Formats: sequence, C-alpha cells, structure tokens
Amino acid sequence: MSLLGIDLGGTKAAFALFDDGGNLLQKDTYLLGKRKGSEVGSLITSNITRHLHAQDKSDPVKSVGISVPGISHSRQGTVWAPNIGEWENYPLLKEAKSVSGDIPVTIDSDRACSILGELWKGNAQGCLDAIFITVGTGIGAGILTSGEILRGASDIAGAVGWMGMKKPFLEKFRSCGCFEYYASGTGITRLAAEEAREVKGYKGVLSPENNKDYSCNDVFAAYEDGDPVAVRAINQVVFYWGMASANLVSIFNPEKVIFGGGVFGPARPLIPLIRKEAENWAQPVSMKGVSFEASSLSGDAALIGAGCLALRKVKEKKQF
Amino acid sequence: MSLLGIDLGGTKAAFALFDDGGNLLQKDTYLLGKRKGSEVGSLITSNITRHLHAQDKSDPVKSVGISVPGISHSRQGTVWAPNIGEWENYPLLKEAKSVSGDIPVTIDSDRACSILGELWKGNAQGCLDAIFITVGTGIGAGILTSGEILRGASDIAGAVGWMGMKKPFLEKFRSCGCFEYYASGTGITRLAAEEAREVKGYKGVLSPENNKDYSCNDVFAAYEDGDPVAVRAINQVVFYWGMASANLVSIFNPEKVIFGGGVFGPARPLIPLIRKEAENWAQPVSMKGVSFEASSLSGDAALIGAGCLALRKVKEKKQF
Repeated sequence: MSLLGIDLGGTKAAFALFDDGGNLLQKDTYLLGKRKGSEVGSLITSNITRHLHAQDKSDPVKSVGISVPGISHSRQGTVWAPNIGEWENYPLLKEAKSVSGDIPVTIDSDRACSILGELWKGNAQGCLDAIFITVGTGIGAGILTSGEILRGASDIAGAVGWMGMKKPFLEKFRSCGCFEYYASGTGITRLAAEEAREVKGYKGVLSPENNKDYSCNDVFAAYEDGDPVAVRAINQVVFYWGMASANLVSIFNPEKVIFGGGVFGPARPLIPLIRKEAENWAQPVSMKGVSFEASSLSGDAALIGAGCLALRKVKEKKQF
Repeated sequence: MSLLGIDLGGTKAAFALFDDGGNLLQKDTYLLGKRKGSEVGSLITSNITRHLHAQDKSDPVKSVGISVPGISHSRQGTVWAPNIGEWENYPLLKEAKSVSGDIPVTIDSDRACSILGELWKGNAQGCLDAIFITVGTGIGAGILTSGEILRGASDIAGAVGWMGMKKPFLEKFRSCGCFEYYASGTGITRLAAEEAREVKGYKGVLSPENNKDYSCNDVFAAYEDGDPVAVRAINQVVFYWGMASANLVSIFNPEKVIFGGGVFGPARPLIPLIRKEAENWAQPVSMKGVSFEASSLSGDAALIGAGCLALRKVKEKKQF
C-alpha cells in the first residue's frame, strides 16, 4: 500500500508517495507562480490523477492526504487559504474526489499536518500530547491531545498567533494578533527596525540607512555577529516565544513542544533560551515534564503529516 | 439507577444522589473542620458506605464520582489537594474502592468536574467544545474538546492561572502564576490594595486605614458604589479576564466559555465587559462563534459533574 501526501503552501505544492511505514518513496515540487483559484485546484487534481495512473499496480495508492495553508472546514470540505488567490472558500474536497474515484481524500490544515508529521516520523513519535509551534510569516500551532488533533468547534483551534502577551491592547495587533505581531518572521524584522531607532548612534547592518529591506534571516545573521540591535530584537522575541510556549505548557501539559516553520531554521540554537524564559512562567510540574525541541523533519513536517492523514483515514484508527 | 456524586472542597464535602437524568435527589454537606489526611478519607468512605447501605433496593447506587480540589492522578488513583492537610499524594481511589465493592469509583479534579456538570445540566449542554473558567481563591479551567475532558500528559492540563499576561516576569508570579496573581479572588483584593496606595488622598472604604482585611466581596460592593479605587481594580481584573479568555478562545475555538467559582458570584454582571475586552484580542472568527456565560448551577457545577463522572463510567461512552 502506498499513500499520496500533498503539501500545498502559499508559494509551492509538494506531492509525495509514502509507504505505510512513513518512508518517502518519491517527491515532486511545483511552484505555484501566478496560479490562483481553480488553477491551483487543477494543479492538485492533475497530480492526483498522474499519481493514480502512473502507479505500480502491485502497490496502489490507497489514500490521499492534503495539507493546506489555512483552514480546512472539515464538514463542508472547503478551504480558506489567505495566501492563495480566490481560496476564500475553495471546494477542494469535491474537486479532489472527482478525480480520486473510490480512494479517500482527507484535508487538514498545515498546522494539524505538521504535528501529525512529527507524530509519524519526527520528534513526537509515541506522544499522545504534543504541540507543534510553527513560526514563519505567521504563527500557528498544531496540537495533539490524547492522540487526537485539536480542531475546535469550527476547525480553527490552534490560532496561537492571537495570544495576548502584554497590556494594553494596541490597534496594530488587530489584523494578526499580539504574539504574531512581535514574534513571527515579519515580527522579528519589525522589532529590529524599532530597536534600530531606539539605539542611539547605531550605524550597523540593520540601520535604515544601510538596508531598508532586510529580512528575518539578516537579523539572525547580525545576532550571530553580536550586532546590538539584533541582540535586543532577538532577546525580545525569545521572551515572547518563551512566555507563549509556557502558556501552552500550563494549558495543555504536553510531553513535547516542537518548534518548526521557516524561522526554526535560524532560531534553532535559541531553544534553550526559550525554555529558560518559559520556566519562569509555566506551571512548574508541567514544565518539568515537557521537552522543548526543534522539528527534525527539515521543513517536511506538513508533507509527511499529509501522508499520515492519508494513512489514518485508511486505518480508521487514529492512534499510533 | 442512581449515582453518588461527591464534591470534596477545601473546607467542606458534599454528597448527592442523582438519577440518571441528572436530577438531584438528595444532598448532604459536611464541614471538614480540622480534619486532615485519613480523617478526610474516612469522612468520604463512611458516607459512601452510608449511601450504599441506606439506599432504596429498587434503585441502587450504580456508580460513584468524586470531585477533588486539586489534581487527580488517574493512573495512580492518588490525589494532590493543596488545601487539605496531608493530601500530597493521597490514595483516595484505593480507600473508596475498599468500601464500594463492585460499584465503580471515578475521581477527577474540580475543574474537570465543573465542565462536566455544565455539560450534563448547565450551560454547556449539547456542546463538544467548551471551557469552564473557575475563579475563586485560585484560577483554573475545565476544558472539553470534541466531547472529551482535556487531561494532558500527567493530568494537570487546564492550569490557566499560570498564563503569562504582561512583561516582564516578576518574582511575585512564581508561586501562583501571573494570571492568578492578578485575577483570582485573592488577586482582586491585592489589586485594590495597590490602587488604594496609588490614588492620592483616597480615604474610602478600601483605604488601609479604614479596613485592613477587606475581602474580594468588599471590593465588588465598593465597585457598585462607584468607589474610585474599586473601579480601578475591577477595570484591571476585567482586562486580565478578557485577555485570558480571548487566549483560550483563539487556542480552543470553543462554543462556550463559562465563568464560575466563588468570584462569579459578584463578578457575573461584568461578563459583557469581559467579552468586550476579549473581542480586542481573540482570533475574530472564533470570537464571533463563542458565547460567554456565567455558570447556571449555583456553585454546584463540580458536584453535578461528579454525578456525571459516575454516569459516564457506567455508560462507558463519553459523549452526551
């Protein structure tokens, strides 16, 4: 039996075949380019068709799992994906099923798929209670409780980027949430820009005169070089990551908190500092019992999780 | 079939018989007085025995549920209850089973029982995803996700009193958590005392000269009279309750957030203000879908939940 996992992101789509042990047999990646709406849908359906037709007859694809960059409305089969044009309420399940025939298709959010990926092949193997915090352009969390994905009443649980972390409320938090405002990839460059104005006489690589369009990675590079603005910005973001992960530890009492997404990446060496900050805030017994780790799946957590989603559907039992 | 629900608190224990429709048939309450350790255990076992012997033979007790003011270690059958002397690791399950014979005994925390009580007979009826925030001497939450109680890896999920809500970390948060420090019953009197020192020339009912030992209820009474110190303190606590409940809404996407415990009570009329603060912070779609309500069970949520715990054990299916 093989499984087709699809990871749709904001800029690309990856298609991978897995065996039921979670080994990746084959992988293709396509940039979305200017595709939007049904063009993105067609990219997915044509690749499902290709995989179903091209497959080894002795080892057919038995199930398809799709990770989407937004919300999977599980009852309606529709997807809201803010970074894909015209995907406010896209009927992905219906389209995928139109080409998959009898083979089941399951869709879930990238954050849900990421923790499933860690559960299947990564650092959450054997866990019943674990959290994947994904930090990229935005912030979200995939949360496993008693072996099940936390969904909420309308499939939008895990929106941890909206966590409030300081008083008072500021209007700038309204479009993305307080935690995400400060501690996403975008937030890090924003903090660095603020600090560059604060540090008197600063003329370093993060000063507006030297570089108007620096990225989050530039801030991390400057941090490693001891740049004072970068150090102040990263110290702040470590504070926010620490307090936020502490809050999740107190609320969920998980076995693991796993950090992933593009920012972890360069932020991996900061995990011990994040843990130290979290130890200040969290319920102490829960804190003692939890491990903080980076994703071990090299950015493939959601793709592997899509394969796992496909497998769980076939097995119709949800624990490993 | 009848069910015996027991609500052990820090100062008293209540014993109630329920029918399987959740109707309360009989209730007795005992003050714990100076009881500690096995004396509290004996109070429970002797009342279990009394109920099993005295019962109507045509309608026997089929199951016992016990709510405890602390942590129920479900695998070990032991209880940690900080407000009961010598209950660091009390073998309550073994003791209760020694008198219950073939009748099952189930133990859970008061916060888990409170949301079960709301699910069975209160404002969470019909919900799969709901949160009971209990505010008394401390703060905790009973959390229902997809119809199941959130337990965590070691039964201490829901410790929301430890939520961090402002920077920086202060040593005074270390023993109880930041949210609890400011927004528990104890926290409210603490905030009022701080504000009384802040407001210049204040000579009102909450000034240290007039009243050294005022309670949380005194602060609410002064608030209703428009006392400026009480207004400042209550506005602050509304902020914390609003931000904390918003965080839970963003994380869990629940149908209901229910406020209970001794402080709600007098804080009930503040729920619309709490909601207004929460609307600033929370993920907007989740916020739109959630209802904020006070417990409708007049302080009996945990007791009724203990009855529900007993019923769930008998039915061996966990959803209503």
